[in-house]
Amino acid sequence: MTVEEARAAFPVLERIAYLNAGTFGPLARSTLEAIRFRHQRDLEQGRSGADYIEDMHGLRAEVRARLATLLRVDAQRVALVRSTSDGCQVVLAGLRLRPHDEIVTVEGEHFGLLGPLRVTGARVVVASPHREAILAAIGRHTRLLALSAVMWTTGDALQLRELKEETGLPMLVDGAQSVGAIDVDATPFDFHTVSGQKWLCGPDATGGLYVRDPEALDVALPSYFSQALFRPDGSFDPSDGAARFDSGWIPPASLAGLLAALDAAPEWRFERTRIMAARCREALGERFDVVTGDEHAGLVSWRANGDSSAVVTKLYERGVVIREIPGTGLLRASCGYWTNEDDLDRLVTGLSA
Amino acid sequence: MTVEEARAAFPVLERIAYLNAGTFGPLARSTLEAIRFRHQRDLEQGRSGADYIEDMHGLRAEVRARLATLLRVDAQRVALVRSTSDGCQVVLAGLRLRPHDEIVTVEGEHFGLLGPLRVTGARVVVASPHREAILAAIGRHTRLLALSAVMWTTGDALQLRELKEETGLPMLVDGAQSVGAIDVDATPFDFHTVSGQKWLCGPDATGGLYVRDPEALDVALPSYFSQALFRPDGSFDPSDGAARFDSGWIPPASLAGLLAALDAAPEWRFERTRIMAARCREALGERFDVVTGDEHAGLVSWRANGDSSAVVTKLYERGVVIREIPGTGLLRASCGYWTNEDDLDRLVTGLSA
Repeated sequence: MTVEEARAAFPVLERIAYLNAGTFGPLARSTLEAIRFRHQRDLEQGRSGADYIEDMHGLRAEVRARLATLLRVDAQRVALVRSTSDGCQVVLAGLRLRPHDEIVTVEGEHFGLLGPLRVTGARVVVASPHREAILAAIGRHTRLLALSAVMWTTGDALQLRELKEETGLPMLVDGAQSVGAIDVDATPFDFHTVSGQKWLCGPDATGGLYVRDPEALDVALPSYFSQALFRPDGSFDPSDGAARFDSGWIPPASLAGLLAALDAAPEWRFERTRIMAARCREALGERFDVVTGDEHAGLVSWRANGDSSAVVTKLYERGVVIREIPGTGLLRASCGYWTNEDDLDRLVTGLSA
Repeated sequence: MTVEEARAAFPVLERIAYLNAGTFGPLARSTLEAIRFRHQRDLEQGRSGADYIEDMHGLRAEVRARLATLLRVDAQRVALVRSTSDGCQVVLAGLRLRPHDEIVTVEGEHFGLLGPLRVTGARVVVASPHREAILAAIGRHTRLLALSAVMWTTGDALQLRELKEETGLPMLVDGAQSVGAIDVDATPFDFHTVSGQKWLCGPDATGGLYVRDPEALDVALPSYFSQALFRPDGSFDPSDGAARFDSGWIPPASLAGLLAALDAAPEWRFERTRIMAARCREALGERFDVVTGDEHAGLVSWRANGDSSAVVTKLYERGVVIREIPGTGLLRASCGYWTNEDDLDRLVTGLSA
């Protein structure tokens, strides 16, 4: 598959320099077709019956297996969730932390991780997003490191594997900005989230959660999928493996759409994402204060000249889609395997206009 | 709108006697069209930009207002959730119950309510689903009554308004089998869930939650929508009103689909649902042991002659969709405003074959 062939899958790229996969990836025509096919079935045959249920379970099993492959882990250790926030919630509620416990996280994390951290009641220790600062923040009450693999703000990729090896602490990795953008091996971590709708270009409200040891985490937010058997007082025998952490219903149409999206990605996706993000960083670096460092994935962030919100609007009107990071004065472009030189030219030209 | 006109909106009814709105309502052509319109927009223009965000917020506000009207409550007290299970989870986690607290529920409740009850750590007291038994189960440690307005198993409607008046206890009402099937006034209750995908015939993974006093419930499962402002340690100022309990992202296409579904329902929906369920009860009562009592909504349940699962399959092969209630030997038919005499004839004939 050539770059041009890969780009042709995404209608939005025909007119728009779409540089916002960090929020939502572009949708491929085949993804929408898979969704429509399921919807047509739902419309004509109803959302019931043995075939419907069997299809639904089949789609769930297939998505679970595909996400497991993507993370290089066993499918038995992957739960289907509706977002990375859902995944963080499942883990943090399940850990049953107490007020004297501490969780170490870093400045600039997303509320999808921070909100669930906060409501555990444990003490949240916020370090600067650098190795030494994180290590310094760890104390004898630290029960968890909770960090994004790639910061949604600066685009910096943290060296989490080394951090895990060095500390041996339980680690929740938010993969919102990594899975699909860079090659991920979740094996060393305790928990790892996946977003279906960002770098995997899937339908919204799809995602996954890797749990290395499903037996060791409480099922604190049970869904119907969590139980193999339940009693009238709600006590239940959990489902096998990480399926016990499956959060609520994901429409079969969305599961089918996610599978189609996974099929659409070329083998060279990670290499090309890396190259295009590096080119973007270079091109912007000639005129702007780029904050994204050498270790990055698909995100590139820089300081806005003037009002960041106004810049986003100006670009949008010129068919260039980026975003601002509220409260920071930062602008962010997302470069995927589908990004080309023309997209970057349009970005730089638009910024300079 | 005549019954025939109302039926014509649902393609599934052309061939199938679809009697399973208690699981998933039939989908109207206009609901799918609204979904497709949004998806096409997502495909061509991308899921980003000021217009996209504005549309999304507009759709959320409109769905919130419409669900509030349906429950006869103020929109400020309605949260958007992805299912009734989600709604139960939000309430039960937010109450911060302790091991010596007690929750009274009834036999035969759905795991979507029971699972979240159980994991609170409070003692779950299971009463028989009748007024006297429920009253007898209440003690000085009872912190909550958690009940379905209509039992998903027997189809019986409980007299919850009277129970609330008599006990004055906080009450969580699961509206999965009531909202859209019968006229509901949630005002007397503390918490009331709504399913979008059952009797409202909306897209899957849509729903609502009424919270009478949003300030009095903890935001225990925060989503991005829960906060008006957050700090690096995750502490946050909650959003106004019940929007602080909005659970995660609901795709704009699903919100648009739900609005279209709400538009499709005729004014006479509740009266007709009641009549058709009564006729179903009568028709089945001539030959079977119907367990649904006089006080019902759209569900009718009866004891299967022989293996309930085999009966469901036999009917499905004849184009009649009902369901069994696992572990009970019960069969269940859902009658909506769209149900006609022919559907009921096909059910009775199919059962007798």
